[in-house]
Amino acid sequence: MRVLGVDPGLTRCGIGVVEGVPGRPLRMAGVGVVRTSADAETAERLVVVERGIEEWLEEHRPDAVAVERVFSQHNVRTVMGTAQASAVAMLCAARRGLPVALHTPSEVKAAVTGSGRAGKEQVGAMVTRLLRLDAPPKPADAADALALAICHIWRAPAQHRLQQARLRARAAAPAVRTPRGTR
Amino acid sequence: MRVLGVDPGLTRCGIGVVEGVPGRPLRMAGVGVVRTSADAETAERLVVVERGIEEWLEEHRPDAVAVERVFSQHNVRTVMGTAQASAVAMLCAARRGLPVALHTPSEVKAAVTGSGRAGKEQVGAMVTRLLRLDAPPKPADAADALALAICHIWRAPAQHRLQQARLRARAAAPAVRTPRGTR
Repeated sequence: MRVLGVDPGLTRCGIGVVEGVPGRPLRMAGVGVVRTSADAETAERLVVVERGIEEWLEEHRPDAVAVERVFSQHNVRTVMGTAQASAVAMLCAARRGLPVALHTPSEVKAAVTGSGRAGKEQVGAMVTRLLRLDAPPKPADAADALALAICHIWRAPAQHRLQQARLRARAAAPAVRTPRGTR
Repeated sequence: MRVLGVDPGLTRCGIGVVEGVPGRPLRMAGVGVVRTSADAETAERLVVVERGIEEWLEEHRPDAVAVERVFSQHNVRTVMGTAQASAVAMLCAARRGLPVALHTPSEVKAAVTGSGRAGKEQVGAMVTRLLRLDAPPKPADAADALALAICHIWRAPAQHRLQQARLRARAAAPAVRTPRGTR
């Protein structure tokens, strides 16, 4: 299974590609960052992010894309750019028919370090060890993208089983629609 | 000048196309809503929004696209979907080389009603009058998209002069880069 992880951001969008299956050593297939200029208009920056992600998808042909789930509560100042860049990443993947998975930062930290509250350095160190690299990938956005991809490889089987169970439950339930808000 | 206004949203993305110049009667060229199902995955919904906006751009060939500026402070629950849909709208426009303008809700209200704190009904009533329609466009997202397009037609000349002044100031300033955060 080849997974492309995206740590979304307008200034630096981390990208990491990891191959492997749960329980076997993992292999890094690529790592990098898509950068856009803070002097450019937001719309132009989104076009640069799209072009960068498309190049990565084109070159690495992943089986799935894992994107960090953005919360509106945190980092009010930068959350809009993060949300916009993550939208572009999700769009690029879904347009190609690739499954898109979202993982929260604490899910990613817990998956690679064992603690949902691990620091940047701990995540970088574990990514380095798990992928048998010579040094932690820089910048941190690149290491985080690899951690996302690793997290997805390890969580995907459980997520898949959950999704199947939900679909079965929905199929078995009577067709009553309850009112729901905007999600 | 033909402007396509977008009131971004994942469940309902309002679209309105208005033709005109400041000081002359305006004409509505089209109005509608791109809808996506709340049952679908976010990534799939963004693909539907992209397809919808592309169809509108293809059919109406606007000179500019005006998108409502999203603030992270308001409506924490729905702000992520709004930010994601607005990213797709900006991306579609910029990819075609169209100028993208962002206007805040209060700029739009002030432009069409004279008050930045006008209610939905007041905005709908003024849009109806300004475009000489038989009834206010429904849903409110569609009326808001038309209001955005009207606001842009009226504000564009002033915005253009401001932008030119900023570019001249930047060209005249010494090439000293001050540290700046993520925008």
